[in-house]
Amino acid sequence: MNILIAPDSFKESLEAIDVCNAIKQGFSQVYPEANYTLLPLADGGEGTSSVLSYVLDGHWQQIKVHDPLMRRITAKYFLTAEGVAVIEIAEACGLHLLKSDELNPLIANTFGVGEMIADAIAKGATQMLIGLGGSATNDAGAGMLQALGVKLQDATGTALKPGGSNLSQLHSIEHQTLQNLLSGIKITVACDVTSPLCGPTGASHVFSPQKGATSDEVLILDKALAHFAAVTHAHNVSDDCCSSVEGAGAAGGLGFALMAYCQAELKSGFDTIAEMVALDKHLAKADLVITGEGKLDAQTAMGKVANGVALRAKAINLELPVIAICGSVDRDISTENCFDNSPFDIAVPSIQKLDKLDNILDAAYPNVAQTAYQLATTLKLGQHLKS
Amino acid sequence: MNILIAPDSFKESLEAIDVCNAIKQGFSQVYPEANYTLLPLADGGEGTSSVLSYVLDGHWQQIKVHDPLMRRITAKYFLTAEGVAVIEIAEACGLHLLKSDELNPLIANTFGVGEMIADAIAKGATQMLIGLGGSATNDAGAGMLQALGVKLQDATGTALKPGGSNLSQLHSIEHQTLQNLLSGIKITVACDVTSPLCGPTGASHVFSPQKGATSDEVLILDKALAHFAAVTHAHNVSDDCCSSVEGAGAAGGLGFALMAYCQAELKSGFDTIAEMVALDKHLAKADLVITGEGKLDAQTAMGKVANGVALRAKAINLELPVIAICGSVDRDISTENCFDNSPFDIAVPSIQKLDKLDNILDAAYPNVAQTAYQLATTLKLGQHLKS
Repeated sequence: MNILIAPDSFKESLEAIDVCNAIKQGFSQVYPEANYTLLPLADGGEGTSSVLSYVLDGHWQQIKVHDPLMRRITAKYFLTAEGVAVIEIAEACGLHLLKSDELNPLIANTFGVGEMIADAIAKGATQMLIGLGGSATNDAGAGMLQALGVKLQDATGTALKPGGSNLSQLHSIEHQTLQNLLSGIKITVACDVTSPLCGPTGASHVFSPQKGATSDEVLILDKALAHFAAVTHAHNVSDDCCSSVEGAGAAGGLGFALMAYCQAELKSGFDTIAEMVALDKHLAKADLVITGEGKLDAQTAMGKVANGVALRAKAINLELPVIAICGSVDRDISTENCFDNSPFDIAVPSIQKLDKLDNILDAAYPNVAQTAYQLATTLKLGQHLKS
Repeated sequence: MNILIAPDSFKESLEAIDVCNAIKQGFSQVYPEANYTLLPLADGGEGTSSVLSYVLDGHWQQIKVHDPLMRRITAKYFLTAEGVAVIEIAEACGLHLLKSDELNPLIANTFGVGEMIADAIAKGATQMLIGLGGSATNDAGAGMLQALGVKLQDATGTALKPGGSNLSQLHSIEHQTLQNLLSGIKITVACDVTSPLCGPTGASHVFSPQKGATSDEVLILDKALAHFAAVTHAHNVSDDCCSSVEGAGAAGGLGFALMAYCQAELKSGFDTIAEMVALDKHLAKADLVITGEGKLDAQTAMGKVANGVALRAKAINLELPVIAICGSVDRDISTENCFDNSPFDIAVPSIQKLDKLDNILDAAYPNVAQTAYQLATTLKLGQHLKS
């Protein structure tokens, strides 16, 4: 029996590879002879490069970059043997890099992201997979562009200082250096955010408050980013005016810069990763698929990993059984649909006992292993049950 | 397929019959054609009469009795069509009848238990199943005996006042009325407590502190009960001196009085109930057994229901699969034995998601139904799985 184990991480408690190992540990107690393929997955956000490092040949690259407040930090990305750089922007400009009293989306910037991209190109990368998500910035990618040689100047010809608010002073743009640098480089952005750059559903209004912006600052930032888009358009940087495209507002507008200046293609995070790890090929060989994620709920249908695995599995073979092992399973128990856990054949939680939240999270690995064991035992019992 | 559903209650959240219904609800979504037998069980403690009322023909009896502080209350017991009175002593002398500032094991007494027994005999009962457990008393059953006509007098010939501490004044005993009353009546006591009447492992030392006794009062009570046993022995009430028998110390020494004065037989609570509901007969007809209890842990091997069901099932047919659906499953996850959930083929928890304790307890019914559904789906999937 070929068993494919292809889960997401459990966000608060386990990396995807650990989920894989726990499931295999429990299952192989009951089915020691089965062939197990471990395929940790991610949704394009946190953990993407780590997941791909388990599946693809390559090496971690560690470099010094600037953090959102222009301090020197160490960031890492994964460079595959085939020349794909897997970059998570949060490594250079993530919220986790700042203390809460340091949050300041007026000046926080993405300079370090540009440094990571430049480093990858210098090391021979010909493709980039860039995971957006978790940024502390709202600079529409201006910092990244400056790090990659784009000249953003005010009316006096002075280079703009970093940070989204300074974009209101933007007067002229020179981006030929960047075009030369990116020649022959294909950039794919894993992104499930649908915000445009500006306006009430844009980066500043939707995301900058959680990065520390006051309501006045939201307006300042939204106006500055709109000005950046207008000047970009006036300089014919790209064929389309990318500011209104879905995803332009992702990562504080970094999506916009990547599309308008770097010809990046924005794709669903899960689909992008599924293709990189050849998920469909693995599914086609499987007799049983086990996926999972930390919390299965109404959001699961919105592009999350477990749901994506199940849909791809059923598209390949409607009879291919798909089991989801989760931390929590949150269904509407009041409705008649409480037993309907489509698209999974089975979706089970893994909490084994009443306990404090911290203890439950700490016990995630043994709990998942136990749950896998319980499932495997039940499957095996079913194989011998009088029908 | 014949499915026997035979669980204990989930102590903090669900009665045994509700556990049965929830399991059937989930399972029958997947196996609608199966034959389901619902056999709620108990361990001889709380819920015993309720459980037997679902399984055996009979009627509830409701009478006025005296509570542990001699106030009038209403108590109920179940009288089967075959003349078996199922009496839980906590109905008349339970801890739950007293507020915390009313606890007083020096004077709390079992008079109401005697009233229940007398009422059952008057209504034609020829057998009694008496469930010990949950008592607020430490009177060695003296109150019960007085209610049944036994004369307990001090040296002046005055009747003793109720309560364990007054037994120190006991001088003479007249019990012929009781022997006449109980003639032809068989009393079985469901009891898993192994304490003798007195001494460091006896009723007063082990149980009276949780009934409100101070350390001085523990000594007073232990001495009074020892005196009661000595006077009982001196009056040749029974052939054996029952005070040292295991279980004599149960329910504040009520076990002693039931054995010494009422010729009661003390038996394991689960075994007693299993025999009354003909568990073995049901097991012999089953293709699949589902049991369960609120918390499966190291204590489960100590006479609890789920363990008992599994052991009896395997004794009848080693191949008969037994599944335990529990609230929590508490295993030592640090050992190599974490996958060993003997004597069950499968033991699963039913918590579906992280939540507050109260919410988890409130959701016990849908959680058990969900878990049963997940198990049934997995069994069914196993029936069709490539091996």
